[in-house]
Amino acid sequence: MELFKSTESEVRVYSRAFPVIFNRAKNAHLYTEGGKEYLDFLAGAGSLNYGHNNDVLKKALLEYIEADGVSQGLDLFTTAKHDFIESYKKHILEPRGLNYKMQFTGPTGTNSVEAAMKLARKVKGRTGIISFTNGFHGVTTGAVAATGNKHHRGGVGMPLGNVDFLFYDGYLGEDVDTLAIMDKVLSDGSSGFETPAAVIVEAVQGEGGLNAARAEWLQGLQKLCEKHDMLLILDDIQAGNGRTGEFFSFEFSGIKPDIVTVSKSLSGYGLPMALVLFKPELDIWESGEHNGTFRGNSMAFVTARAAIETYWKDDAFANEVKAKARVLGEALQAICDKYPGEFHVKGRGLMRGIEAKNAELTAPVTRRAFEKGLIIETSGPNDEVIKCLMPLTTSEDDLRKGAKLLAESVDEIMQEGMSEAS
Amino acid sequence: MELFKSTESEVRVYSRAFPVIFNRAKNAHLYTEGGKEYLDFLAGAGSLNYGHNNDVLKKALLEYIEADGVSQGLDLFTTAKHDFIESYKKHILEPRGLNYKMQFTGPTGTNSVEAAMKLARKVKGRTGIISFTNGFHGVTTGAVAATGNKHHRGGVGMPLGNVDFLFYDGYLGEDVDTLAIMDKVLSDGSSGFETPAAVIVEAVQGEGGLNAARAEWLQGLQKLCEKHDMLLILDDIQAGNGRTGEFFSFEFSGIKPDIVTVSKSLSGYGLPMALVLFKPELDIWESGEHNGTFRGNSMAFVTARAAIETYWKDDAFANEVKAKARVLGEALQAICDKYPGEFHVKGRGLMRGIEAKNAELTAPVTRRAFEKGLIIETSGPNDEVIKCLMPLTTSEDDLRKGAKLLAESVDEIMQEGMSEAS
Amino acid sequence: MELFKSTESEVRVYSRAFPVIFNRAKNAHLYTEGGKEYLDFLAGAGSLNYGHNNDVLKKALLEYIEADGVSQGLDLFTTAKHDFIESYKKHILEPRGLNYKMQFTGPTGTNSVEAAMKLARKVKGRTGIISFTNGFHGVTTGAVAATGNKHHRGGVGMPLGNVDFLFYDGYLGEDVDTLAIMDKVLSDGSSGFETPAAVIVEAVQGEGGLNAARAEWLQGLQKLCEKHDMLLILDDIQAGNGRTGEFFSFEFSGIKPDIVTVSKSLSGYGLPMALVLFKPELDIWESGEHNGTFRGNSMAFVTARAAIETYWKDDAFANEVKAKARVLGEALQAICDKYPGEFHVKGRGLMRGIEAKNAELTAPVTRRAFEKGLIIETSGPNDEVIKCLMPLTTSEDDLRKGAKLLAESVDEIMQEGMSEAS
Amino acid sequence: MELFKSTESEVRVYSRAFPVIFNRAKNAHLYTEGGKEYLDFLAGAGSLNYGHNNDVLKKALLEYIEADGVSQGLDLFTTAKHDFIESYKKHILEPRGLNYKMQFTGPTGTNSVEAAMKLARKVKGRTGIISFTNGFHGVTTGAVAATGNKHHRGGVGMPLGNVDFLFYDGYLGEDVDTLAIMDKVLSDGSSGFETPAAVIVEAVQGEGGLNAARAEWLQGLQKLCEKHDMLLILDDIQAGNGRTGEFFSFEFSGIKPDIVTVSKSLSGYGLPMALVLFKPELDIWESGEHNGTFRGNSMAFVTARAAIETYWKDDAFANEVKAKARVLGEALQAICDKYPGEFHVKGRGLMRGIEAKNAELTAPVTRRAFEKGLIIETSGPNDEVIKCLMPLTTSEDDLRKGAKLLAESVDEIMQEGMSEAS
Repeated sequence: MELFKSTESEVRVYSRAFPVIFNRAKNAHLYTEGGKEYLDFLAGAGSLNYGHNNDVLKKALLEYIEADGVSQGLDLFTTAKHDFIESYKKHILEPRGLNYKMQFTGPTGTNSVEAAMKLARKVKGRTGIISFTNGFHGVTTGAVAATGNKHHRGGVGMPLGNVDFLFYDGYLGEDVDTLAIMDKVLSDGSSGFETPAAVIVEAVQGEGGLNAARAEWLQGLQKLCEKHDMLLILDDIQAGNGRTGEFFSFEFSGIKPDIVTVSKSLSGYGLPMALVLFKPELDIWESGEHNGTFRGNSMAFVTARAAIETYWKDDAFANEVKAKARVLGEALQAICDKYPGEFHVKGRGLMRGIEAKNAELTAPVTRRAFEKGLIIETSGPNDEVIKCLMPLTTSEDDLRKGAKLLAESVDEIMQEGMSEAS
Repeated sequence: MELFKSTESEVRVYSRAFPVIFNRAKNAHLYTEGGKEYLDFLAGAGSLNYGHNNDVLKKALLEYIEADGVSQGLDLFTTAKHDFIESYKKHILEPRGLNYKMQFTGPTGTNSVEAAMKLARKVKGRTGIISFTNGFHGVTTGAVAATGNKHHRGGVGMPLGNVDFLFYDGYLGEDVDTLAIMDKVLSDGSSGFETPAAVIVEAVQGEGGLNAARAEWLQGLQKLCEKHDMLLILDDIQAGNGRTGEFFSFEFSGIKPDIVTVSKSLSGYGLPMALVLFKPELDIWESGEHNGTFRGNSMAFVTARAAIETYWKDDAFANEVKAKARVLGEALQAICDKYPGEFHVKGRGLMRGIEAKNAELTAPVTRRAFEKGLIIETSGPNDEVIKCLMPLTTSEDDLRKGAKLLAESVDEIMQEGMSEAS
Repeated sequence: MELFKSTESEVRVYSRAFPVIFNRAKNAHLYTEGGKEYLDFLAGAGSLNYGHNNDVLKKALLEYIEADGVSQGLDLFTTAKHDFIESYKKHILEPRGLNYKMQFTGPTGTNSVEAAMKLARKVKGRTGIISFTNGFHGVTTGAVAATGNKHHRGGVGMPLGNVDFLFYDGYLGEDVDTLAIMDKVLSDGSSGFETPAAVIVEAVQGEGGLNAARAEWLQGLQKLCEKHDMLLILDDIQAGNGRTGEFFSFEFSGIKPDIVTVSKSLSGYGLPMALVLFKPELDIWESGEHNGTFRGNSMAFVTARAAIETYWKDDAFANEVKAKARVLGEALQAICDKYPGEFHVKGRGLMRGIEAKNAELTAPVTRRAFEKGLIIETSGPNDEVIKCLMPLTTSEDDLRKGAKLLAESVDEIMQEGMSEAS
Repeated sequence: MELFKSTESEVRVYSRAFPVIFNRAKNAHLYTEGGKEYLDFLAGAGSLNYGHNNDVLKKALLEYIEADGVSQGLDLFTTAKHDFIESYKKHILEPRGLNYKMQFTGPTGTNSVEAAMKLARKVKGRTGIISFTNGFHGVTTGAVAATGNKHHRGGVGMPLGNVDFLFYDGYLGEDVDTLAIMDKVLSDGSSGFETPAAVIVEAVQGEGGLNAARAEWLQGLQKLCEKHDMLLILDDIQAGNGRTGEFFSFEFSGIKPDIVTVSKSLSGYGLPMALVLFKPELDIWESGEHNGTFRGNSMAFVTARAAIETYWKDDAFANEVKAKARVLGEALQAICDKYPGEFHVKGRGLMRGIEAKNAELTAPVTRRAFEKGLIIETSGPNDEVIKCLMPLTTSEDDLRKGAKLLAESVDEIMQEGMSEAS
């Protein structure tokens, strides 16, 4: 571990909270070199919806490598890409009535956001983008301008521009219609808010604290976009790929975004992959305007296709996720009920957590949980939300076990806090 | 192929020049679904220095996957990362007298450039960066601001800022000392050029047309950086990992850049991976300021380590590359000698090509080469340079064979052009 | 008039609404070459608070010119500047408990705003400024970034940055506390709103539609500035110099802004002059950092001093303005009462007007008024507010006469509209 | 003087070098309150080409004020503006074959530059501007981005953008063709220099150190602008209005800029006034897009017209200026000849000075000159140039007298330096 500390940059995050060396993983479990087992409610920050080293995907991957399938294909035509596209179109897009072109970008979420914002600006010939309070869209210079977090913005070392922030659903309290404010400033020729090329939004804000927009709000946002001739970019990087109990996090609202960014669990095996979906009429890219060496990570295409064929040919998996979401929701609600006013449940689907009134409590709780064998992280502007992002394939037993470890950790910290105070 | 054309975005590039579907690859060869073999002088745009599906690396990768090694490790401590760091430090950094901290960024070259530029701005508290004519550093918003190419800059849809361009070695002709100009504008308090946080430079400009800086120029640049208190960022994404016959492309000059960006062939297997190296005193990152889900692509760590252990424990491989570079250089020179004034050789090491006086000739030549079974691309502002980026592991036979196919293609196109003209 | 149309740029505004050639003026009256008299309720867009060619000021000006007083003094020490400073300090600043340094900028309001914003950024080392919906602060590149109006922003031809807009008092309806929203986004580390160097605000928004902030709101804003370590810039260019019945428009609230910008009626004779006032501890300017050739327009110093000595040695003039404001207010209210729901009174002091529910009505009304001999303009994002900006020295007779002409114009247009409709 | 020091901002410049209080002025002379006379070789920083309180202009001004002519006319049609336009068109534009529209901006040079840059960006739909090393164009945010000086740029407190700098005539030495470099980077699609909307240039750089472009260079620049579809903005604020011995500083080269900015001596009496001239086809301004309260400073129109009618109806005055320029040039050359290698003459017309090899010498020299009764300033990035900007109406006696005082000051400082050294 000394090697890491002396050699790896101070920028590292997770290894500070979970300072052990992992060497093996399976589904919802991580194992250290010493053989200790951890239940993983972080799951690659949402990039392992189908669990670590999912056996179906693993088999496809091994076969592909064994057969010397093209590993790195740039944006050449390859069999692996062909089969992925075919499968994604047939099982994901078409059943949902979505007619999108597909752009494979550099294989990171932030790269797909950069591409989406660039395309929107190009299409509309305007430079502005509207983003929302507590939104997180990545940390490269274009994407971080749309990211609310001061810490990430500050890392850039120069002022960020061409993005205005407005208020996410519920941000100003339940009784304030944040879309009405948005409509007002966009309708007012002297508000200082110029009509942007696009609006970028998450249906559930993962890093921002598990804020979940209501269906009506998303519908209203889509209408506003039409009214003011703005494109709607739905960033589905963290909330997509089944996390909310539907493939896309926005399906429940019935909206059809102009542009969708997809990454994280897309490959299903934690392999880097990113995708931008957009309406065909927006495809005004010139050849190579946005590029990136690793946009043809074929191994990811292979596992991504296997994931689709395994989990998304019918509703079974989605229903399973919804059922687990109910189990998790109840378990979290039970924690909150025990400490009225101190905690409340946030989020949607298996992207759920509890917000502590006292943000100081969450770090001790997750530290304690780690001691008990549970890997779980926080989110929100003050890390006030304990966030569950377990694999969707976590067994119900493990789900309950993890919830129990979390409940115990909360209890102990609350207990200790009280004894300290007394 | 119809599926690609109807569904994949118009942004695609390489599949336009090489419109076949590939499904298998080995070392310097790509194979189509129909079984046709191509000699690959593009090699994943420089990301396959050790060839397609290199057997040593493949073995390590298969074992790792079989054993359920952590596939996606975020920035957790993992055995795979540990072993890579250890190996990189021991066989790459230490023997070269380089004492660097290592930052794993989102696994794309552009992401490492974004991190490097952010860090430099943070360290120096200034917002400017100086980049060079014909430089290419990626297409995310921060990186593309340092990229000279109009086409890529135009894709952003908004003005780019905080980067000034100055002149690369030789840009203004052999007799103009471009560093003297740089010194003059930086020494002049009224030149309009403000002291930047850093200078970003490639030792050989790959996309920019295989312009190779002289050792003296790089040394002078390092001195200028010291004089004006600017950091020197060496972008080694394309030219590094052995491409020039040394591990880092700048070794021949003896300079020690403050920051080095590494990607492309780092993993050795075409797997997405990126790394920023910097002097320890620059490591002022706060935890998580720059992040990215896929910064712990463990499979890449595994193959990267295998590549180091296989090729960089001693000088044998580097010497082999240098020998091949001589072979290639002679073959290219022979082409040029046949058409005096029409072509000349550019580049360094196995990053070599021929520049056509008449830029209109290169597309027909590479098209003809493709018909003959050779995959080769162009670079430079007007695509006037035919660029050889074959695997460093290409056999001498294949090297000669490829050069012969290229020579034939040149001959035929020149012949046809003459008959057309006559 | 042909000469103007063929030679003067299309950018001209007022000559379109009032297409006659003026050659003489006195107090509230303008006279055309043909001798036609107009009552002037525009008054140099608020730069003639003491009327056209005020006799007291005129006398001082003539004497100064006759005596070959320094006309253009750069920022040299001159007697004229000395006497102005002395008088301003004694009769304006000291009686109001304001301890400010004085910076004479280029003699335009926008230049003083540029200086104020530059100084604030320099002092705080941050680049952001918060401005408010419907704010107007000038059209040079720095100032227009803080100006809400799309038309003016669009004139710049490039994206504007480093300014965020928030909501002026009452903008979101009477029941919404816009300062609470401001506090929320500034307290939230992930809102996307970064702590700015300063807030810039008008106590009454002239161009924005005569929106008048309440005393409590201004007080709350000052408190927020303290809480979040932001400077408070009060742009008093249009509302200052007695317009609201006090010398500074913010006096009624008791706040003491960190920086105040002053121009328009400062010279009292329509002569270009501008001034930035700021707390002494903010005076970190280096010599010459902000300059401008005409910052020592001595004739303006002379008339400005005469205005102060004539009107601001005691309360008499201020009381007179307040009395006239009541007269005007009643007259405007009478118009509105006649058309319930169609018009309502806006503004404060002698910066008052009526807002039409139907913005289409205001242009016909002001056109009709002009035909009747009254020069009056509109403001607001849709020109929906008819704005009275007559000299403060307008006689009560002229005040009533102008109000009567306006009332008649409204009546006629409303009548005509009804007959058209019937 | 205490009042100034305690109350006026530290930003002041000239009063530091010339710390006396002036109260009267005539032609080339300034007088202190105590009656001491100074010869003024600064002349309102070039805004008093016709001298202080020129009697012809004074007479016109007094008559206008006496008659209650409109003092502040916004952009209304006024007799004063009409007569100025007529005169300017007839005696200035038409004889020179210049067909320009006229835009009156806020009455400062920087405001006219802002308008020019905005218009150029609007016309070309591009955001970039190319400016030149050592250029000075004002300090408002838009203009200062095109100003080379670090000190002024630093005052803004945020990064400046959308302007690239290239090399003024002679900047890289006599043998380097700076236009060839400009052509190369603009012709190269990968140079990082994007085609700008316009180029902004001074024919003689006043603040930048009296660098005078050659006619061939200006001609070449105009050709480059045509070749690359860029507008040519000639900033004639300091060098215009007769300063070089022609009305416009660019006449000698025969070029016809697309846009010309004029201010400083335009009014002839030191009264604030600014003007943008541009080709009629560029007049795409929408009404009011660029505005400013004081754009109708009628007194300035009156004196400006009087200046034109007095000095520019024929060649007499221009010839007189040229003759004086020869006298001044010879006197300065004599100084330089005395100290070979230490000083050399710079500039053109009556915009002339001497550059000291040792920049440390200029402050002592101008200080000494002031003690002797001569007001003279420095310019250039390191204040290494002693700059003569006397009124064009300075008598030949005064011209010689001033030159003599300067020569004595140089002699004394050189003498003292030698004795110190010995």
